[in-house]
Amino acid sequence: MFPPLREELRGVEPYGAPQLDVPVQLNVNENPYPPSEAVVDDVARSVAEATRTLNRYPDREFVELRGALASYLGHGVCAEQVWAANGSNEIMLQLLQAFGGPGRTALSFAPTYSMYPEYARDSNTAWVQGRRESDFALDLEVARELVERVRPSVVLLPSPNNPTGTALPPEAVSLLCEAVGESGIVVVDEAYGEFRRAGVPSALEVLPQHRNLVVTRTMSKAFALAGARLGYLAAAPEICDAVRVVRLPYHLSAVTQAVALAALRHAPELLGKVDQLRVERDATVAWLREQGHQVADSDANFCLFGTFADRHAVWRGLLDHGVLIRETGPDGWLRVSIGTAEEMTSFKHALTAVTGTAGTEEGRA
Amino acid sequence: MFPPLREELRGVEPYGAPQLDVPVQLNVNENPYPPSEAVVDDVARSVAEATRTLNRYPDREFVELRGALASYLGHGVCAEQVWAANGSNEIMLQLLQAFGGPGRTALSFAPTYSMYPEYARDSNTAWVQGRRESDFALDLEVARELVERVRPSVVLLPSPNNPTGTALPPEAVSLLCEAVGESGIVVVDEAYGEFRRAGVPSALEVLPQHRNLVVTRTMSKAFALAGARLGYLAAAPEICDAVRVVRLPYHLSAVTQAVALAALRHAPELLGKVDQLRVERDATVAWLREQGHQVADSDANFCLFGTFADRHAVWRGLLDHGVLIRETGPDGWLRVSIGTAEEMTSFKHALTAVTGTAGTEEGRA
Repeated sequence: MFPPLREELRGVEPYGAPQLDVPVQLNVNENPYPPSEAVVDDVARSVAEATRTLNRYPDREFVELRGALASYLGHGVCAEQVWAANGSNEIMLQLLQAFGGPGRTALSFAPTYSMYPEYARDSNTAWVQGRRESDFALDLEVARELVERVRPSVVLLPSPNNPTGTALPPEAVSLLCEAVGESGIVVVDEAYGEFRRAGVPSALEVLPQHRNLVVTRTMSKAFALAGARLGYLAAAPEICDAVRVVRLPYHLSAVTQAVALAALRHAPELLGKVDQLRVERDATVAWLREQGHQVADSDANFCLFGTFADRHAVWRGLLDHGVLIRETGPDGWLRVSIGTAEEMTSFKHALTAVTGTAGTEEGRA
Repeated sequence: MFPPLREELRGVEPYGAPQLDVPVQLNVNENPYPPSEAVVDDVARSVAEATRTLNRYPDREFVELRGALASYLGHGVCAEQVWAANGSNEIMLQLLQAFGGPGRTALSFAPTYSMYPEYARDSNTAWVQGRRESDFALDLEVARELVERVRPSVVLLPSPNNPTGTALPPEAVSLLCEAVGESGIVVVDEAYGEFRRAGVPSALEVLPQHRNLVVTRTMSKAFALAGARLGYLAAAPEICDAVRVVRLPYHLSAVTQAVALAALRHAPELLGKVDQLRVERDATVAWLREQGHQVADSDANFCLFGTFADRHAVWRGLLDHGVLIRETGPDGWLRVSIGTAEEMTSFKHALTAVTGTAGTEEGRA
């Protein structure tokens, strides 16, 4: 049979949400605020400078960027504890290539990010999936027992979880790091970390206590840089050294390094938009609940709501109103990304029109 | 043992030449000509434009770039036959993930590019290496027999070969494509393809005849864009579709797409520099031979010369004269990248001083 694709890949559709041209795009958890002209200018200037030596290979160790990311993270993280790649999906692949692979197992808890099993497949790592409770939290005793039974080399724990928005308390991270022990690593995927509600801590707080803990982040969401592809991790220096063995040489272009450094210089401005989105997120959760919908508590820039007997009909109805959300997560649930106030108004109007279960939101804040 | 790295990765040094700060860098086959200000301006303008929507994910299918790369390649190649990634090393990894992997074997012929076994290792593909003849060409009967015995899923054939500079005739490509048959693919790595001597054909010429043939290229060398990381392939559309299953979603940033498109608009200017380098390469080969050195025929922007009883001493001596070349290839040989005329003069002076086997090149052209 041609082409001679691996058996397990035959007939598989490439991962990815439909890229449709719709007025209100609330389907892939993008930040709705484009970079300001100040950011655009700084990026253009930095890239022009980098382009003058683009005939040379980039700094393979991206020393300056690692330092800047460490400063941004705080929590005492230093440059030797930081590693970056083209999106946090490349970070995950590198971690699985180094610590997973044939004869080893990766573990996560469903419902969770649907790319995880694909990373495992693409690195030839066995994949085991436990379950979350009905509120999408982990039962720590059940999780610990599963870890002790499966002996995973890699545990993937998104916090906040995608698509549910559920954050993990640091004591859960610590308990699982101890259960996994020195024969594996625990990856807390904080792609949406900056959107946590006040008082919800980051796993960075317990990083000094666990040398098998890896905390991953991305500049796609909080830094409004999905198009630039910059993911990174913080972990013990020996974890970074291990990843270095499997990274492709010069994997991070000089241009990507320049763009990320420019954006980091504008962190206060960009994080101001994050605060606006957190307010909008809380308002969206409250509104959906007022309409009688179930909504998972969210520490992310999206929320999962439901449940609908025919969620596809609701998704389709919203699309007919020019609002694209995502049909993902457990049966009956839908996920909406948090956009601008105007976009969320469009979403509310459309949902009200489609579900007909509640009046209009006129008169609401 | 912590960290719990895979057994085969323990104690392995990450791949990569030393990045030393030396006046004359002729060690990693970079193009010595930095982009002109016209290229810098076009890149900066294009990136500024892309940055305005950098909060959105990039075009996952990079349709415009695939079309531009197809136009550049010519030979009737269309956009559906082109795929790109962050450097041709990511292209190789994707090909091995799709067509190699556990239970499958990749094959090449030594001496050859030292990253190939690492791609195989990182994709859990078995690795078999045949031998080249003493002039670094392939004995086609020996190669065919090895293919029939090993039944490889992926054959990696660089042309021109690195580090020897040896190009492969199209009939060799055809013979190996037929020997491999429908159970595998043949990857002709033309990273240095634009530097071929007049009359040496590209494997693109036989692409229409072999649906298991993949021709890879990079913008690092001919386009002087090593820092931008853009590799690509041309193959049957079903090969591109297969690679799409294992690619990480959005692997090619909007910025990388913009930079590559800008550089492609300046192809005539950049390929003019390639012509200068080809002339300089031929002159360097001739000069080395006049000095009594052995030099492998080169169709690339580097040449392999020797042999030295203590090549490390020669390498070190050149470095002491401010000239960094590469200690690679078979025992006794050294590889020098082709730089500017001034850089090659420095190289010649230094080599003469270090080897002392010949007079100075004063009076030579």
